Amino acid sequence: MSSDNGGAGELLGDRHPDEIAALVGKAAKIGIDFFTGQARDDLVLRYAPERELLERFAEPLPQTPIGDDALLDSLAEVSRWSVAQHDQRYLAFPDVGNSVAGIAAGIVATFLNQNLIAYDRSAPAGSVVEAQLLLWLRELVGFSFFPLNEYAGLRHLGAMWTSGGNMSNHVAMTVALAATWPDVRRRGLRGLPERPAVVLARGVEHFSYLGAAQVLGLGSAGLVWSAANSDYTSDVSAIAALLENPPEGTRPFMVVGVAGNCRTTGIDRLAEIADLCAKHGVWFHVDACHGGSLLFSDQLRGELAGIERADSVSLDPHKGLFITYPSSYLLVRDPEHLAQFSRYPDKLDDPSCLDLGLITPFYGSRGFESLRLWALIKHLGRAGIARLVEQREETFREMRDLIESTGYFQMIGAAGFYRCAFVYCPPEARRLVEALRERPELVPRVRAVVSRYTQRFVQTLYVSGRVVFDLFTMQDLGNALGLGTEAKIEMLGMCIGHPTMDAGAKEDIVKHIAAVGDDLVDPMVNELRALGVDEAQEAWTASVHGPAGW
Amino acid sequence: MSSDNGGAGELLGDRHPDEIAALVGKAAKIGIDFFTGQARDDLVLRYAPERELLERFAEPLPQTPIGDDALLDSLAEVSRWSVAQHDQRYLAFPDVGNSVAGIAAGIVATFLNQNLIAYDRSAPAGSVVEAQLLLWLRELVGFSFFPLNEYAGLRHLGAMWTSGGNMSNHVAMTVALAATWPDVRRRGLRGLPERPAVVLARGVEHFSYLGAAQVLGLGSAGLVWSAANSDYTSDVSAIAALLENPPEGTRPFMVVGVAGNCRTTGIDRLAEIADLCAKHGVWFHVDACHGGSLLFSDQLRGELAGIERADSVSLDPHKGLFITYPSSYLLVRDPEHLAQFSRYPDKLDDPSCLDLGLITPFYGSRGFESLRLWALIKHLGRAGIARLVEQREETFREMRDLIESTGYFQMIGAAGFYRCAFVYCPPEARRLVEALRERPELVPRVRAVVSRYTQRFVQTLYVSGRVVFDLFTMQDLGNALGLGTEAKIEMLGMCIGHPTMDAGAKEDIVKHIAAVGDDLVDPMVNELRALGVDEAQEAWTASVHGPAGW
Repeated sequence: MSSDNGGAGELLGDRHPDEIAALVGKAAKIGIDFFTGQARDDLVLRYAPERELLERFAEPLPQTPIGDDALLDSLAEVSRWSVAQHDQRYLAFPDVGNSVAGIAAGIVATFLNQNLIAYDRSAPAGSVVEAQLLLWLRELVGFSFFPLNEYAGLRHLGAMWTSGGNMSNHVAMTVALAATWPDVRRRGLRGLPERPAVVLARGVEHFSYLGAAQVLGLGSAGLVWSAANSDYTSDVSAIAALLENPPEGTRPFMVVGVAGNCRTTGIDRLAEIADLCAKHGVWFHVDACHGGSLLFSDQLRGELAGIERADSVSLDPHKGLFITYPSSYLLVRDPEHLAQFSRYPDKLDDPSCLDLGLITPFYGSRGFESLRLWALIKHLGRAGIARLVEQREETFREMRDLIESTGYFQMIGAAGFYRCAFVYCPPEARRLVEALRERPELVPRVRAVVSRYTQRFVQTLYVSGRVVFDLFTMQDLGNALGLGTEAKIEMLGMCIGHPTMDAGAKEDIVKHIAAVGDDLVDPMVNELRALGVDEAQEAWTASVHGPAGW
Repeated sequence: MSSDNGGAGELLGDRHPDEIAALVGKAAKIGIDFFTGQARDDLVLRYAPERELLERFAEPLPQTPIGDDALLDSLAEVSRWSVAQHDQRYLAFPDVGNSVAGIAAGIVATFLNQNLIAYDRSAPAGSVVEAQLLLWLRELVGFSFFPLNEYAGLRHLGAMWTSGGNMSNHVAMTVALAATWPDVRRRGLRGLPERPAVVLARGVEHFSYLGAAQVLGLGSAGLVWSAANSDYTSDVSAIAALLENPPEGTRPFMVVGVAGNCRTTGIDRLAEIADLCAKHGVWFHVDACHGGSLLFSDQLRGELAGIERADSVSLDPHKGLFITYPSSYLLVRDPEHLAQFSRYPDKLDDPSCLDLGLITPFYGSRGFESLRLWALIKHLGRAGIARLVEQREETFREMRDLIESTGYFQMIGAAGFYRCAFVYCPPEARRLVEALRERPELVPRVRAVVSRYTQRFVQTLYVSGRVVFDLFTMQDLGNALGLGTEAKIEMLGMCIGHPTMDAGAKEDIVKHIAAVGDDLVDPMVNELRALGVDEAQEAWTASVHGPAGW
């Protein structure tokens, strides 16, 4: 027991190699038992409400050592109440993180614990591996790149790891600001001659931009909202109008193009936005956190045509690329704009300086997170990854059609590449909705009923632990329900993360959908029939749980 | 081979459990071989210059799958050129990351891949575990806390994980700004009635504050510099003077107190700064990225007295707490100031809402990094961690005295708890320095000689891979060398990360110090003798490699 050996055993390296291997093997077994489903009774998750887990894990600050066995037990207990995002029946988000290379590299990196702030003393191989990865990513996006052995200094890298898409978008805004007003780093925003503004489309936006504007000193008033199309993409003409006639006193310095929005994975017409930005001299940021994985596929990358003209691109391998968290990247087309953040400008052209921390705003000491994506690209190559991405899109289309064919749903936004949105609305209910929407005064209540039953459907399935959809509120921009495009409605999200779907999983999913779906038909129909007659209907409270809804 | 089985084998969960276990075992073995020293010939690192590793890892974007064996080989190759921060002969930084619990939990977390943005669908157990950990950390600092099963909503948590101390300090500045001017989130910095300024001491500052001011819209002009004492702590009277008479037009809104600076781990008089901040109504941020680990020890935590009165505290378990990257935390005394960042204020008092992403500015989807520190505290308890921290301080004092007793060095800043700074300056050289410094015109050149030989000493040892010290430039604030306090000099940093030191390691360290140290005595003495006679001396170029120097 570690508590009996004078303290040395509390640090892994102080143990005998056989003991190390034994402990690591036990930890790995806990991980594998979760991964293969044993620890979770072959469910996607063993559901427990918040209060129950709060009670289960509540514990006063521990005071004394408990030994290895108790440690391992407590890790196993955490695994038993975790959700398996890589399970085929998990259909909420694409964050599967289940590549062989990513997990193998994750285990190795845990032991290496390199610090990617600098080369000497902190991360010799790590810095070089990360630099190579950044160059590969630049090549994939269509930005300039060079062979690593022709490396001529940090000035030319133009890319960095970040902890997530949220941060990548924060950094993009920071870089765009400093590229537009180089003096801002010294004088601050109060020293600028005009009010900086970011242009993005409401309805397909990710919440990170509002967050970034708020914490980077622009304020939420620094966002200028354009509009979205009925297919959940940015309306290019609305952006054009804003750039032609920005609100008085403001200067738009950045336009956000969305390559796969977080709810329906619609992809903007990037080339058209690039034209506009070029015309107005405005920074073009492409948020490819969802769509970035398509770049590996010759067959699919055409959907992102124009991305190579972006000034910056966010990628999120922990979303669509089978890599565990944290794995996100920001690429900057002209590397100079990232290089300007170096505290030591004279080191930028030193071909023997690989201290990545000099060009990573917001980051100092940080781990070797890039090893996992580097390993994935090494292991599968562009072609191997392309095949997974293409398989995933096929599986998505198949599952989307299968879901639709069950008859319980009305599709809302289904034109994306791995994610779609729909509501619970079986045929009998749909006929009533069609009749009731003719009476405008009832429309808000019809929306509430649809929302409530969609919520109930998703939550009932979720609590069963058998099939996990996402749940969020969204505008019905295409007016598929005929209940208006302005108000938000509760929706189901289906996202395919795992590229393939076994026949067994498919059958399971359909079976459980039917079981829950059937039970809700009559109550929903009855509520719709009572609309306009019975005033005492249950209110609908919008769900705000979960990132896609934010 | 994964390239032959129709794609399924590229995703770990698609393999047979025995195959999964075999692959994970092989990855773990690569990690363990690095950890125990086999992969690095029992050196701290097998040194290679940048150009060599650039050549070794340069590779065009891979196109096709290579199979598991080649993947594992490439990971092993990376490990062979990595540096072992947990090796006892690694004396540059405290980032050992070698706790049994931290590594075991790191392995488990790789498989769990939970998303700490939200409870449902993303991280049920993870959210609860992280909340418990945040409350333990609040208790350790001396902030308010409550039993987890009395959780009443996000409004009361007042803490968050971040990717590193740099980010924790960025978030602290963001929170302090918004606490001082709540409207800043909406109107931005341009809407404020006065120019916000941060007060911190030059000479002991961490580079993150300059970076934060630059990217958060304050600009570097938003930093107001006070002074440091000769013992490398903030001069409280200088802070007082600045708060009494701030530069015209500016309003100081935040003072940084340093609980362990990154070069000598000097600890500020926190209670005195707290008094000042209270008097002037200014946010008091304590940067305890280095000193935070002392909080576990009843014997040592008195050195941080006053930290409980801070408005915010940064902790960095991936520095002094034996946890792998990324592991940093920001605590906010009044949780309301963090809660204000929630996009959904009405969720803040919902006792069933554990969506941590609502109160984590800068962060959306992110991994279960908190499991590792939670596991460490579970495994060892406060007492077990205290013992490691106390052992480490004892080892530090012993090693510092041992280093001094070798006679090759002049101590510069040696009053800290696990890190000290010194220069290479053997007795013969010291006598010459003492004589030469009487001639003011020679002082800059004496400094250059001392700096150059200090550099040479550290680099020669580093390249040998046998002992790793840190190297950075710093002012000699106590004028220990008598060469003035203003100019920066190259210094050696010794940091004890591993709590214990085997007799063998100690012997090794002394032996290699002597081998390199002896060789440099005559050349250094000759150069000093030639000063004032020979004008053609080699110039000294300040080293900027590595975080402590930034």
